[in-house]
Amino acid sequence: MVDLPKKDAAFIDWYLAVVEEAQLSDKRYGVKGMNVWTPYGFLARRNLDRILVREIEATGSQPVEFPALIPATEFAKEKEHIQGFDAQVYWVTRGGLTELDVPLVLRPTSETAMYPVFALWVRSHRDLPLNVYQIVNTFRYETKTTRPFLRVREIHFFEEHTCQLDEERATERVQSNLVAFRRMADSFCLPYLAVRRPEWDKFAGAHYSIALDIPVGDGRTLQIGSVHHYRDNFSVPYGIRYEAPDGSARNAHQTTFGLSERLLGAIVAIHGDGRGAVFPAEVAPYEVVVVPIPSGDSATLVEAAALEIAARLGRAGRRVHVDRSEDRPGAKYYRWELRGVPLRIEVGRRETESRIATAVDRLGRKHPLPLDELDAAVARLLGEFDQALRAQAEARFRDSFSVADRLESLRDSTRVRLVGWCGEEACGHQIETSIDGALLGTPEGDLPIPVGVAKACVACGRVEGVRWAFASRPL
Amino acid sequence: MVDLPKKDAAFIDWYLAVVEEAQLSDKRYGVKGMNVWTPYGFLARRNLDRILVREIEATGSQPVEFPALIPATEFAKEKEHIQGFDAQVYWVTRGGLTELDVPLVLRPTSETAMYPVFALWVRSHRDLPLNVYQIVNTFRYETKTTRPFLRVREIHFFEEHTCQLDEERATERVQSNLVAFRRMADSFCLPYLAVRRPEWDKFAGAHYSIALDIPVGDGRTLQIGSVHHYRDNFSVPYGIRYEAPDGSARNAHQTTFGLSERLLGAIVAIHGDGRGAVFPAEVAPYEVVVVPIPSGDSATLVEAAALEIAARLGRAGRRVHVDRSEDRPGAKYYRWELRGVPLRIEVGRRETESRIATAVDRLGRKHPLPLDELDAAVARLLGEFDQALRAQAEARFRDSFSVADRLESLRDSTRVRLVGWCGEEACGHQIETSIDGALLGTPEGDLPIPVGVAKACVACGRVEGVRWAFASRPL
Repeated sequence: MVDLPKKDAAFIDWYLAVVEEAQLSDKRYGVKGMNVWTPYGFLARRNLDRILVREIEATGSQPVEFPALIPATEFAKEKEHIQGFDAQVYWVTRGGLTELDVPLVLRPTSETAMYPVFALWVRSHRDLPLNVYQIVNTFRYETKTTRPFLRVREIHFFEEHTCQLDEERATERVQSNLVAFRRMADSFCLPYLAVRRPEWDKFAGAHYSIALDIPVGDGRTLQIGSVHHYRDNFSVPYGIRYEAPDGSARNAHQTTFGLSERLLGAIVAIHGDGRGAVFPAEVAPYEVVVVPIPSGDSATLVEAAALEIAARLGRAGRRVHVDRSEDRPGAKYYRWELRGVPLRIEVGRRETESRIATAVDRLGRKHPLPLDELDAAVARLLGEFDQALRAQAEARFRDSFSVADRLESLRDSTRVRLVGWCGEEACGHQIETSIDGALLGTPEGDLPIPVGVAKACVACGRVEGVRWAFASRPL
Repeated sequence: MVDLPKKDAAFIDWYLAVVEEAQLSDKRYGVKGMNVWTPYGFLARRNLDRILVREIEATGSQPVEFPALIPATEFAKEKEHIQGFDAQVYWVTRGGLTELDVPLVLRPTSETAMYPVFALWVRSHRDLPLNVYQIVNTFRYETKTTRPFLRVREIHFFEEHTCQLDEERATERVQSNLVAFRRMADSFCLPYLAVRRPEWDKFAGAHYSIALDIPVGDGRTLQIGSVHHYRDNFSVPYGIRYEAPDGSARNAHQTTFGLSERLLGAIVAIHGDGRGAVFPAEVAPYEVVVVPIPSGDSATLVEAAALEIAARLGRAGRRVHVDRSEDRPGAKYYRWELRGVPLRIEVGRRETESRIATAVDRLGRKHPLPLDELDAAVARLLGEFDQALRAQAEARFRDSFSVADRLESLRDSTRVRLVGWCGEEACGHQIETSIDGALLGTPEGDLPIPVGVAKACVACGRVEGVRWAFASRPL
């Protein structure tokens, strides 16, 4: 058994220890920042992806996959975009023993791979909307310190790209993506902020960017995704034009919606505790672990009962694991708590005889589990577990914010700050310097805490056009 | 509507036309041989992958994912292996604006990515067997003519890698992989050959290789996968050693099992016909398409009935599509035949009133479909469809072979040839020259046609130690 660092006192050390001890990722690969998805981590990722696929396909988006390599000539077509990525892409310059005529970029994101082909797919207004998504790996030559799931060089990535008739339809798609993300986040039991980034921090090439940020304690935030409105910034250079019903040629308006393996990092970071990881039921590699507790001559009987419970739950579609290792029950409890399994079922001689086992959820709550109503009881307990996990996360979320009305007080807080902001870039930079972090931007939708109306810009004191904005130290 | 080339007369032209017209892949991407997975092609691939995952996990294999980039230093550790791949890998030499100290190879296969980490995972005999698999894309700088699914530069790839206690356990794993593939192939309705490759044609670094070959007509074959026994050829250079129960240190013995998107190409090639693609039910993007046939004032009623049928089948877990386009019913039939949907349900006014619709399967057989037993009837028809497809493919398979007892007659045949072979490499090369193709190797398991015992080597006439071998012109 290992002693985990304290989450409150040493968050990053705690996080790294949980990822390692729960065997979610192995970072001992020969390229720094490129980690191995171990079986347990891969299963969590597969469940997470399944939720993304379900929710995005429910909005009519279709799966595609574009190549990982992008010709330098296509990559360079949108000027702001290439400037935004130039310093952080991997270049393929050789094929076999031959120097390539046109070097290839390993995709850091797929605009420049997809849009030349979209120009072939979109010809008429009848081809719109075009809503497609892919789940692929992207690559960034990261120079900052890498951390499993949070900052890596090969990134497991979800990206939706759409073409719409006009700017208004594109705005609607952005909103529909935000609704889809609300459903996803509900499955992850993750509260979050939707934040419109300031001009100087929007995605390279975007008209505007809405980021999805999660407070992770100590006044820090983690961006786990974003939705962008591109207007026709890309459709012009890539020639994505269509014939309107009146015969005129128009540029498509585009949007994108991106999420990454950071979601898994956020799930570990937000729900985890002093005993290890805690997975919401839909994401958990195993929803249920069954631990047989043999005593004296009951070993065979008890193990048979454990296997029968697992078989019944498996038939009901549950992901379930029986721990048949030689370890003591206590060591098994410790292991599956560390690895974040939502529900543990303990089966000993007494339980076998009474037909009532004991279920212990990952929040430590014990429940009698009548074996004759196993499926229904487990479904109910998992639902209640998720609800409790969500409530716990939401309580902490609401407690993650505080108002700052002076630049000087921005820094001395362990909370994400709400500040009045006039919208001027100069004031924004002053705020960023004062907090030694970022002005995340203005809220898209409701504020997370009731603070009334913003009165004055925290930087210049102006009162006209002032809105609330978030400031934090991004992780 | 397009006229497809004749499959018998111009196989490759027919194949390319079907892939394009059925919208399975778009090859208009800016890098030759790197194609776009369109929504329809992606859905077929997803179903195919689901079958691979189900069957391999049933054998206790666990999913993982290793990085796509491999340091040149690791890549070079197994001498035969690197020689086998040297001329066909993509090299990443630059990150951002910096020349990399150690160039990175874009994985052509994952031995050299995985095995340094396996050396950390495998310490004791209790860590064995280690059976893991991944489904990822691999990259090969292909210099031959590329074809969608059959020969591409970014390859959708399934690869299992295992570590076993000893050579015998590794041999058992090879056999268990062959059994798993039999189940997979059954879902694809694909008959195939398992062939032990001759020494000079085994995988770079393998002890022996068993290939999975499919006759595709005209005496040609397509290799769609392989299973390899590595003995300790890789575990020695990569240091995959474990402590045996007696305390001694031993080398693990390894196996791999590889399959690729060629499977999808084979499904198109084998089952397709003059009207387009034909998908087995489990692989089909849509198992069922519902075509409403409105007449006069019945349009609303008929469309409602079509939607209700689709909703009921959807609830039963079927992949179903309602064609509500403006096209004539005939155009819709044509489209969904071209795209290979197993079952079409036609609903007009009469069908709505009688509660008996018409189902037409992709082999052209009509069936009355009682709407009051919809789910069960569709399940039965899909099962019967797959059975008929399998029987048709097996009949053609058995007709794909003939015996050749003289080198001179090897070439003038549209069949895969069975020849007697003494096992000598010189004779093998003579056979290859004579057929202007390859000696695939010796059958692993039963012969596909009853031909008795091999009598003499077709090249040297020797009679001792002679076995049957297959010779063909690989596609």
